[in-house]
Amino acid sequence: MNINVAILGSTGYTGAELIRLIDNHPHFNITHLGAHSQAGKKVSDILPGIASHLGDKTLAKADAPLADDIALVFAALPHGAAAQSVKTALDANKRVIDLSADFRHQNTNTYQAAYDIEHPYPDMLTDTTYGLSEWARHKVRQARWVANPGCYPTSVLLPLIPLLQADVLSNHSIIIDSKSGTSGAGRSLKTDLLYCEINEGLTAYGLPKHRHVWEMEEWAKIFGKQSIHIRFVPHILPMNRGMLSTLHLTGKNTETWHKLLSQAYANEPFVRVLPAGQLPTTKAVAGSNRCDIGIQLLNEHEAVVVSCIDNLLKGASGQALQNANIMFGFEETLGLSAHAQWP
Amino acid sequence: MNINVAILGSTGYTGAELIRLIDNHPHFNITHLGAHSQAGKKVSDILPGIASHLGDKTLAKADAPLADDIALVFAALPHGAAAQSVKTALDANKRVIDLSADFRHQNTNTYQAAYDIEHPYPDMLTDTTYGLSEWARHKVRQARWVANPGCYPTSVLLPLIPLLQADVLSNHSIIIDSKSGTSGAGRSLKTDLLYCEINEGLTAYGLPKHRHVWEMEEWAKIFGKQSIHIRFVPHILPMNRGMLSTLHLTGKNTETWHKLLSQAYANEPFVRVLPAGQLPTTKAVAGSNRCDIGIQLLNEHEAVVVSCIDNLLKGASGQALQNANIMFGFEETLGLSAHAQWP
Amino acid sequence: MNINVAILGSTGYTGAELIRLIDNHPHFNITHLGAHSQAGKKVSDILPGIASHLGDKTLAKADAPLADDIALVFAALPHGAAAQSVKTALDANKRVIDLSADFRHQNTNTYQAAYDIEHPYPDMLTDTTYGLSEWARHKVRQARWVANPGCYPTSVLLPLIPLLQADVLSNHSIIIDSKSGTSGAGRSLKTDLLYCEINEGLTAYGLPKHRHVWEMEEWAKIFGKQSIHIRFVPHILPMNRGMLSTLHLTGKNTETWHKLLSQAYANEPFVRVLPAGQLPTTKAVAGSNRCDIGIQLLNEHEAVVVSCIDNLLKGASGQALQNANIMFGFEETLGLSAHAQWP
Amino acid sequence: MNINVAILGSTGYTGAELIRLIDNHPHFNITHLGAHSQAGKKVSDILPGIASHLGDKTLAKADAPLADDIALVFAALPHGAAAQSVKTALDANKRVIDLSADFRHQNTNTYQAAYDIEHPYPDMLTDTTYGLSEWARHKVRQARWVANPGCYPTSVLLPLIPLLQADVLSNHSIIIDSKSGTSGAGRSLKTDLLYCEINEGLTAYGLPKHRHVWEMEEWAKIFGKQSIHIRFVPHILPMNRGMLSTLHLTGKNTETWHKLLSQAYANEPFVRVLPAGQLPTTKAVAGSNRCDIGIQLLNEHEAVVVSCIDNLLKGASGQALQNANIMFGFEETLGLSAHAQWP
Repeated sequence: MNINVAILGSTGYTGAELIRLIDNHPHFNITHLGAHSQAGKKVSDILPGIASHLGDKTLAKADAPLADDIALVFAALPHGAAAQSVKTALDANKRVIDLSADFRHQNTNTYQAAYDIEHPYPDMLTDTTYGLSEWARHKVRQARWVANPGCYPTSVLLPLIPLLQADVLSNHSIIIDSKSGTSGAGRSLKTDLLYCEINEGLTAYGLPKHRHVWEMEEWAKIFGKQSIHIRFVPHILPMNRGMLSTLHLTGKNTETWHKLLSQAYANEPFVRVLPAGQLPTTKAVAGSNRCDIGIQLLNEHEAVVVSCIDNLLKGASGQALQNANIMFGFEETLGLSAHAQWP
Repeated sequence: MNINVAILGSTGYTGAELIRLIDNHPHFNITHLGAHSQAGKKVSDILPGIASHLGDKTLAKADAPLADDIALVFAALPHGAAAQSVKTALDANKRVIDLSADFRHQNTNTYQAAYDIEHPYPDMLTDTTYGLSEWARHKVRQARWVANPGCYPTSVLLPLIPLLQADVLSNHSIIIDSKSGTSGAGRSLKTDLLYCEINEGLTAYGLPKHRHVWEMEEWAKIFGKQSIHIRFVPHILPMNRGMLSTLHLTGKNTETWHKLLSQAYANEPFVRVLPAGQLPTTKAVAGSNRCDIGIQLLNEHEAVVVSCIDNLLKGASGQALQNANIMFGFEETLGLSAHAQWP
Repeated sequence: MNINVAILGSTGYTGAELIRLIDNHPHFNITHLGAHSQAGKKVSDILPGIASHLGDKTLAKADAPLADDIALVFAALPHGAAAQSVKTALDANKRVIDLSADFRHQNTNTYQAAYDIEHPYPDMLTDTTYGLSEWARHKVRQARWVANPGCYPTSVLLPLIPLLQADVLSNHSIIIDSKSGTSGAGRSLKTDLLYCEINEGLTAYGLPKHRHVWEMEEWAKIFGKQSIHIRFVPHILPMNRGMLSTLHLTGKNTETWHKLLSQAYANEPFVRVLPAGQLPTTKAVAGSNRCDIGIQLLNEHEAVVVSCIDNLLKGASGQALQNANIMFGFEETLGLSAHAQWP
Repeated sequence: MNINVAILGSTGYTGAELIRLIDNHPHFNITHLGAHSQAGKKVSDILPGIASHLGDKTLAKADAPLADDIALVFAALPHGAAAQSVKTALDANKRVIDLSADFRHQNTNTYQAAYDIEHPYPDMLTDTTYGLSEWARHKVRQARWVANPGCYPTSVLLPLIPLLQADVLSNHSIIIDSKSGTSGAGRSLKTDLLYCEINEGLTAYGLPKHRHVWEMEEWAKIFGKQSIHIRFVPHILPMNRGMLSTLHLTGKNTETWHKLLSQAYANEPFVRVLPAGQLPTTKAVAGSNRCDIGIQLLNEHEAVVVSCIDNLLKGASGQALQNANIMFGFEETLGLSAHAQWP
């Protein structure tokens, strides 16, 4: 079975990762690679890591029409720009996995508060499917399009949802301290992102309220059945990939939390709950589509939960392929490594 | 004026940094370099960065007697081993800056809880001087020996003390998430510290209660006049130097906090409080003896305070020299750079 | 088709990479994971990146017998130790890919000169197959065991062979300056390999004659039909993976060299010759089984040729799987990515 | 004694390093900090590592007049732009250390070949002083302005000159393979210099003839009395600082070379020749103004010489201060560390 695929916005880091993953997938077949400012250039001029059979192709313009035989579109475009491309693809009867934030909110106001722009298709938001794969399989299977979750929300919601569902958290003291590899900031030309500025350095950013907090709070409520307020501080680190979220949690019955998490994910190929008291490392998930979760109790009211993902895989392109597998009825793990690339 | 100095435990990272700093100091003169397993070897065989005039010296044995003309001893020894060396040096009428944890506690029980060993000289603990320079100048000036603070406690106490003194914090919700460069783990031969295991990775460790938490709580009470409970999670990062502590704080009158911090450190050469809402980076203090502090209000009850130090300078050897300057009546900044080495 | 596979020496970096690759391969099935000092422990305790279905297995002892249904053994053991394990596996009618140096030489004296130990089975050396896949397919297809090439030799021989075959090089002025990521030094516990010693540093090593030079010279002669003398200086770099060899070459008709290289590898999925004057980067091959080659002419007698591989893939475990694919008649690229993981 | 100093082009990496060094110097006093596009901003907004007493100053415009009491100007400007500023400062009777390439050539044609621009003051070139401190002290002492050497030429000329003077090299087979930390590429906004593009990667560049080769060849001839042809390949590495040059040399009497180098630099505080057969590491010179040189004989005709510097110190700002010390009659080492910052 061979399904033709287009990737829009293929020259950023999530785009590059989509090409690698999808081209190694046995059933998806990349036939269209779109770009913006780089359109017209050879793929390998912009992404030298792409081998010749795709590297020699020419990048299509952003508004180039998609061939009829393309069944699936991955949109790895900036928020704001993505919505129109998604709409156009849907109108042409493609299915879409959208890696942007444009359809991650059901509520237009929330989207606008977070991104400070008006949404061009607010009516579509109510129909969106938020593709946190482990909690949204049934919807993804039916969906015409899926909003792929943000990296921080993925790393936060996976450990949080089972605890929210069990109603063991004090909803007003959820403090999350996240650390991201630099690829999370994208391939944009800023002095702050130069090698010598990032290397051997560390900083917090995104305060007072990072855009992803709205996304976390909205989906925590939907999946976890709890209205919560999250205090969130993200940091940027001198490493390419990897994201670690430290959840400083308060609540009740902490002695049950490890079991709640373990049971929730017992059969998940891409979520691993470590033995109680063992803490995860991002190295163990780098290059893998896995999320590792560790928990350390402090006392009966307090615990630290730590989650690790590869921000470009489970945090972006990997989960996107996981969702595509679900959508097309393939084995969910197809083309995705559960093992890390070590070291 | 020329003061002869011995460095004990000179082959670790804090030892190497002491050599660099003290040899560049106009009044201190290194005449003794002690080591343990490396004794008998040439300094530059173990520390190739040390230039020939000191690099060609031979490392003395740990128990080698100190010459009479040595007036000051820096002890950069492991906890447990340090106490005896400090005692011996004091008995020989030297003054001592001890970089270990052996005299950082006034309370023997606390020391034993944190380090799980018995203290050989518990009576000395009550006389110890805790050398958090900005808050202990008067005592350091008179002291025969100074316990140099730990790196995490330095990064945490500097931002906390002014807020504790003003009684604006909820004492039972002090959550601190710290991140340290790998040199903080010392020069010890462990698989976990190999380049390929640390590089491109990130992990939390030291739970449920890192040894430095006892130290923070004890001195927060003494300097800040508040009994507090700290929830503390440290992380280790792929960079050589640098430490960032993110303090997730709750309390009252947050709108006054920036002013409280600014006023407390207005005249300090080595503490810089950034404009409100601006967050520090470890790069800006790497190679410097400075601590940078930033604060971002979230609302009237909540704020994030971030502090940055170079763990080997303000967090260890730099503060040690600062204390030696105070002890001997030199200008406090002598031989210490307030500027970072960038990049 | 399902072939059961054993990996011996599975806890080092090449072992970890073999597990990742082979477990993602559609036809190979790992049923035995051997170790030395770590035998008896859970796989994921030593390799936390391995997901649960294999991570939960127990590491077998080095001398544990291999089950009858195992058809293929990958030996990722230190030189010296490997020979015996290879012999035992062959005697039990398994096929073997040996990643050590024990069977890379046809000449016992050369082996002993390079490794300074006596070979336990010198008679076997004459029968060995040196698995530089692009130049040894016919032999590998028939072989009962294959000696997988070293990383430096792979990066050097691939660009060198076509030029040697065309007889355009001055054989006595082949100067090669190679740079390797730190994983090339293995997972061994040495102070020199600690994170803080490698990070932000760079050094040359392995002089006057690195072990791999004998291997290069021996196979240059066999594949290239030229007796050559190589001046070789390797360096170790602060990055996990990646190897770049800079060949400073002298000879004749340099204007033909790009064509010689391009033609030699025109149909190779894992060797890419860049347009003339374009230089490769290791990033473009990281996570890929590719070797990228660039050439820049200086004048009619001199040229610089640069080759890049991922030392753990085309330089070790990737080429091992490529050889296994050839051996068992699978598509040579099966389970191997030609695309890099970027960034 | 207090000498007022201006730094022009103070916001790049060499500028930042000049500020740190000069402000820690006991006799030089920074009173003017110039910039181009950043003029008008606060120093610490562009260089957050600069402490408040200088960080709070405003960056002056590039063409702002220099106060009368300024005696010395450090020009850390791009080539092309520097010449005019140097001329203006000289006309105002300042002394100048120029870190650009604008006065590094005595021959206008060579300058134009290397930089592809016309020199505005070709007549000045004949009077220039090339400040390779160890070989130019007498001239620097008298000079009104000094052209500070490039980083690659410094790392290459220091090991090369004594061998050229002794006439032991085959002049037509000098092959040099250099590796530079990324700060060598400056603080310019290019995709290639983004953290994620540099980190975990390695590439060669600057072929066929890097600009610095002309400089090396010109001064090798003047200091070494030999016309030589250099084959030079530079590489860029994932580390902030550090430069290592591997000289693959051929000649005669290699057994004398170690002695030639050792004697040449026996009394130099900033050049260390390691014991024969020992190879240097850039870590041992990071943060130091030293150049370390190692030599390994291969046979009587061939040897490998390796040199290491910190490209921003001995390769730029450190040597600039060394030259300023010489110029003003201070101890040459004043304000410069011979020890590395380790790690």
